[in-house]
Amino acid sequence: MSIERIGPAEIMHDVVVSNGVLYLGGITGDDMDGDMYAQTRELLASADQVLASAGSSKKKLLSATIFITDFSQKPAMNRAWAEWLDPADMPARATIGVADLGPGVLIEISFTATR
Amino acid sequence: MSIERIGPAEIMHDVVVSNGVLYLGGITGDDMDGDMYAQTRELLASADQVLASAGSSKKKLLSATIFITDFSQKPAMNRAWAEWLDPADMPARATIGVADLGPGVLIEISFTATR
Amino acid sequence: MSIERIGPAEIMHDVVVSNGVLYLGGITGDDMDGDMYAQTRELLASADQVLASAGSSKKKLLSATIFITDFSQKPAMNRAWAEWLDPADMPARATIGVADLGPGVLIEISFTATR
Repeated sequence: MSIERIGPAEIMHDVVVSNGVLYLGGITGDDMDGDMYAQTRELLASADQVLASAGSSKKKLLSATIFITDFSQKPAMNRAWAEWLDPADMPARATIGVADLGPGVLIEISFTATR
Repeated sequence: MSIERIGPAEIMHDVVVSNGVLYLGGITGDDMDGDMYAQTRELLASADQVLASAGSSKKKLLSATIFITDFSQKPAMNRAWAEWLDPADMPARATIGVADLGPGVLIEISFTATR
Repeated sequence: MSIERIGPAEIMHDVVVSNGVLYLGGITGDDMDGDMYAQTRELLASADQVLASAGSSKKKLLSATIFITDFSQKPAMNRAWAEWLDPADMPARATIGVADLGPGVLIEISFTATR
């Protein structure tokens, strides 16, 4: 089955597409001094761009795996999440509290989507 | 490609289906006072219901990502797992020891499946 | 949709295939005394074997979720990764620092791929 790869970086592609499914690499915020709400907003804005680069959008999400380093900050993440997504378009989702996502990184999300 | 969403919750859907693949949101047990074996059994009973709600079953699993907060309790999880699944139907699986899944939550599983 | 399961183990299959997509179970290295670079090399050699067992190869990867227990060792992981993969073939990827992958296990990777 053919594979389309979009957004080459040194050790990954931003999106890989096969059989109509988009697999997105993990996305983080930009400013690691930002709090959970700010980092989540930045991350979701980046997700919009990555999805658009592959001909998709946040209205076409299938799943989201959300990794956060401080589970007590899940409400702040959820606030940015709910502002971003229409309830009708919510994907399947899991939120996992993990040990380390890199210096200052509070949240990272892996998405799958379709077109 | 069309998307079918089942089981709307505030910030996710229980299952999203596209091109014959079911993406399930993370599932936990119900009683957070239960031990690993009890929580895993409850979780897997919930998975049965979610799979049935989308016209699938535990005989149609593709993958399971298992997050547990105490890796030393993996044997208790495996006991409930092996009681639940026929060996012929075992999906691909990864078990990851993580920092935090929420108050009292010992285990959460994300599945993919087909119909 | 039909499911093909390859490599039965006690609690999982090594690979499950449906609709042209391969879901691989989590893969680790072999010698848990090895450092991050050594464990990653072993793991990736095992991945080659598992992919071949299902008629695929590292040139057909879609996504990789990389779990490591010491995020500061990500560069050593990346070194083995970059030696293994042609830049044109890099999948979507996320690297997550987690609490515990079992005694001595520094890294575990879950892949999806196509044929």
